[in-house]
Amino acid sequence: MEAKNPAIVCNALVSFLCAEMTARGFERCVLGLSGGIDSAVVARIAQLALCHESHAYCEIALNEIASVQNQPILCVFMPSTHSSPQSLEDARECARAFGLPLVVVPLWSFETVFAALYAGCEPTGLRLGNACARFRMTLLFDIAFAQNRIVLGTSNKSERMLGYGTIFGDLASGLNPLGNLYKTDVFALAKYLQIPQSIQQKPPSADLFAGQSDEADLGHSYALLDSILFDFLERGSSREQLLQNYDLRAVDDVLRMYEKSRFKREPIPLAVV
Amino acid sequence: MEAKNPAIVCNALVSFLCAEMTARGFERCVLGLSGGIDSAVVARIAQLALCHESHAYCEIALNEIASVQNQPILCVFMPSTHSSPQSLEDARECARAFGLPLVVVPLWSFETVFAALYAGCEPTGLRLGNACARFRMTLLFDIAFAQNRIVLGTSNKSERMLGYGTIFGDLASGLNPLGNLYKTDVFALAKYLQIPQSIQQKPPSADLFAGQSDEADLGHSYALLDSILFDFLERGSSREQLLQNYDLRAVDDVLRMYEKSRFKREPIPLAVV
Repeated sequence: MEAKNPAIVCNALVSFLCAEMTARGFERCVLGLSGGIDSAVVARIAQLALCHESHAYCEIALNEIASVQNQPILCVFMPSTHSSPQSLEDARECARAFGLPLVVVPLWSFETVFAALYAGCEPTGLRLGNACARFRMTLLFDIAFAQNRIVLGTSNKSERMLGYGTIFGDLASGLNPLGNLYKTDVFALAKYLQIPQSIQQKPPSADLFAGQSDEADLGHSYALLDSILFDFLERGSSREQLLQNYDLRAVDDVLRMYEKSRFKREPIPLAVV
Repeated sequence: MEAKNPAIVCNALVSFLCAEMTARGFERCVLGLSGGIDSAVVARIAQLALCHESHAYCEIALNEIASVQNQPILCVFMPSTHSSPQSLEDARECARAFGLPLVVVPLWSFETVFAALYAGCEPTGLRLGNACARFRMTLLFDIAFAQNRIVLGTSNKSERMLGYGTIFGDLASGLNPLGNLYKTDVFALAKYLQIPQSIQQKPPSADLFAGQSDEADLGHSYALLDSILFDFLERGSSREQLLQNYDLRAVDDVLRMYEKSRFKREPIPLAVV
């Protein structure tokens, strides 16, 4: 697929943020800055939408957030035990480049408590990753409540359609600017917005463990996944039509992930009585 | 408002659970049992839907859940520091009455970690309550994932329409049987289902602190709140029409709570590009 024009997309996202925050009565926001490209783009869009004067970068702990109470954007970096040390460097560089306050909240103690409850059969891997995503959501919504901010989400359409994210964790937010953009669009937007090079160039990762890669987890490159998703969702191509242009395994992987993650995108089913 | 016929409602909820769990590929479920009436009713409905043989009540810790891996229903009681001691008694009586396994997971250590992050300005009250609701959701979804269960929600329509619940906390689930029932319907259903008397008779409470009461928090009795909500939502009465039958303060409180909690019921807004 071809990326959407980033200048047009950027304007649309800035307008969306301004309009929706005003409609909901918010002047300030908070977001999780992971050191990855999606949250860096959201931070920059928020800065364009909300920062009418420049602020100095600062790095603080959670019990010091009163000092940045009035700043329009708060970035929160919440590493787990298994996050790459490079992620902090990248989150810092991003916050520094855009002059945004960065709160650093390691999740170690939550992870310890969570593991201790299961003493003898500690959860690892995906279970620990999901729990950390939900601890982050919990902290972001608490900070938001404490300072009358709205939580900005950072999940893009590729992740949402493939179910590559934690329901009620990183998929949860108050407003999500990137939710209708494919990863391909996010790459183009990052370049246009001059996101720090180290963030643009590293392979996308959920950062649940060192060396993790989205594309390895998903089994295919974003270029291929996005092309298939785009043809399927935006052009309405059937499986048979997709198979004329793409490899069988890739098509079936995409369709399977799309179907299997439906519950992450749909409202909670309620009994009809 | 008049409660719906509980026998008909009960059949509808049992059918809903069976059909939706089958459609989603689940044979087993997990739910948070708070000691209150809503979760007791959901536990009983799940038992009618899923238990084809009787099981013995047992009380275990989280690291012992492998022992109940094959049981169709798992109840989890997760008290916070401020929960009433009566709640454990009531959750136990409910699990014992229906022969369901009860996992007890105190949230103390999560609360300690959460407070420590804010050292010097510890969050209290509603913020702590919201965080505990999200820790519960995190644990329920982790147990569900570990044992291939679906998380049953326990929020009723009165709570949902008034916003009396935590978004991405107790309002989050995989399936919610009570979501379209008013508290008035839940009371009738509890009687019909022979929920233990102590649970039926105690005043409804979010149990964030001893002596808390839903009706005190909401400012009006459920009988009044439900009547206004029913006329407004099911009969389409306007504010002017409501004022012919109800007190001004009650009507405006209901309409205000309904409007203010809209974000808890609507999908996360995504930018359109």
